[in-house]
Amino acid sequence: MTNAGRLIGVGTGPGDPELLTVKAIKAIDAAEVVAYFAKRGRGGNGRAIVEHLIGDKILLPLYYPVTTEIETSDETYRNQITSFYDEAAEAVGGHLDIGRTVAVLSEGDPLFYGSYMHLHVRLANRYQTEVIPGISAMSGCWSLAGLPIVQGDDVLSVLPGTMEEAELRRRLSDTQAAVIMKVGRNLPKIRRALEASGRLSEAVYVERGTMVNAAMTKLADRPDGEAPYFSLVLVPGWESRR
Amino acid sequence: MTNAGRLIGVGTGPGDPELLTVKAIKAIDAAEVVAYFAKRGRGGNGRAIVEHLIGDKILLPLYYPVTTEIETSDETYRNQITSFYDEAAEAVGGHLDIGRTVAVLSEGDPLFYGSYMHLHVRLANRYQTEVIPGISAMSGCWSLAGLPIVQGDDVLSVLPGTMEEAELRRRLSDTQAAVIMKVGRNLPKIRRALEASGRLSEAVYVERGTMVNAAMTKLADRPDGEAPYFSLVLVPGWESRR
Ligand SMILES: C[S@@+](CC[C@H](N)C(=O)[O-])C[C@H]1O[C@@H](n2cnc3c(N)ncnc32)[C@H](O)[C@@H]1O
Ligand SMILES: C[S@@+](CC[C@H](N)C(=O)[O-])C[C@H]1O[C@@H](n2cnc3c(N)ncnc32)[C@H](O)[C@@H]1O
Repeated sequence: MTNAGRLIGVGTGPGDPELLTVKAIKAIDAAEVVAYFAKRGRGGNGRAIVEHLIGDKILLPLYYPVTTEIETSDETYRNQITSFYDEAAEAVGGHLDIGRTVAVLSEGDPLFYGSYMHLHVRLANRYQTEVIPGISAMSGCWSLAGLPIVQGDDVLSVLPGTMEEAELRRRLSDTQAAVIMKVGRNLPKIRRALEASGRLSEAVYVERGTMVNAAMTKLADRPDGEAPYFSLVLVPGWESRR
Repeated sequence: MTNAGRLIGVGTGPGDPELLTVKAIKAIDAAEVVAYFAKRGRGGNGRAIVEHLIGDKILLPLYYPVTTEIETSDETYRNQITSFYDEAAEAVGGHLDIGRTVAVLSEGDPLFYGSYMHLHVRLANRYQTEVIPGISAMSGCWSLAGLPIVQGDDVLSVLPGTMEEAELRRRLSDTQAAVIMKVGRNLPKIRRALEASGRLSEAVYVERGTMVNAAMTKLADRPDGEAPYFSLVLVPGWESRR
């Protein structure tokens, strides 16, 4: 469609609005529609980061169908979430079809574990599309902690905390540095895997990194129990060999 | 020292000046001294990215002692480079001591394989220090390529192309997604390791990502031979399981 609008995946960074790039700000300014993912009844964190830029643009909230996290291996969940992304893509496509440029907000970096990816694979072949990278949560967190993460020939493993304990332990034993994402209710398991692989003492826990209520501590000093959604664990590679 | 200046490690992103964050721009604006790493006789890529912000600030170039890349296992090289970082830290410290705020430019993200780390570990315990994250080269490259890199429970392995071939092959066979940094003269080895691990057909090669002369291609379509310093290889995790 020659008169269709452009699709722009915009990385908003991990929380601090000053971590937006110039390119992201310009893209939002130029868009007629700002789409964002959120839990129903919530404002959405991506939207909060760019609130000062929204003005009187058309807002297109995309509400996740499930509010509590279900096991992603569950088939009902998978079907629900697939239809959700299909419908979200259609809603965005509706605006694109009538020539509106749509900025889809994505916390952190869009193509790095971001929901935007599901729209991208559904729409990028049909509309002019651009992806604007964002500061990832892990970059925001290791910068906040002042923790050199990798240097020289170090390997960095990015591991979702959702993976099986034995597998997490194996991978932690086979890398110089690691970032463990999706901590939430997986914290006790993550701690056990770090302990078993001899890396617990180096691990740093960061929650809401770069947001106003950010907090961090050595993981060894943090009590177990559920962590907030916005939390991750850093295991630096370089430190010991400086 | 109460009247000492502040040390700020500033991530400049991978090349496009519009990928600077608002925070990075403010930090450079506020600094009296802008320090940057470069090969002798060169302007330095980090400096080029922020050229429009430098104005009449004091420039502190930190010239690497070796211009060609020597094996990093070589002891002479190691000693040379250690003294270089010691002297660089002293030069930056000299400005901090007389109350000047020093912004040290770092391409991409400072604490992710960046030279800034060597100054950070030498100075952060003595001076007020802040690290401003930058868009990493890998984020810039997968965004440019529109390539979703990881989703859901995917593991991402960041692998320096300098590692041994067998080790590279082993790690490529044991991950959903990978980024191979430091390609340069390692390209033929990287190709062999990707081929042997069955991942060559998915691999995307990007050089000078987000710079004006950026280029990318499927790695399988690129002839062997030395790659430029600013190049990396992306192996997406998600694509096949969409
Ligand atoms: C669906 S992933 C999105 C990642 C994001 N696209 C990025 O580039 O970092 C969500 C996970 O990112 C991490 N995360 C996001 N923002 C964070 C923050 N401000 N502080 C700590 N962790 C954060 C948490 O581990 C969370 O489970
Ligand atoms: C010393 S590391 C610095 C990494 C940087 N601190 C970052 O956050 O990405 C240098 C390596 O980064 C990669 N690199 C840096 N800039 C790049 C660009 N614009 N395009 C492709 N690769 C790049 C290359 O693989 C190069 O060997």
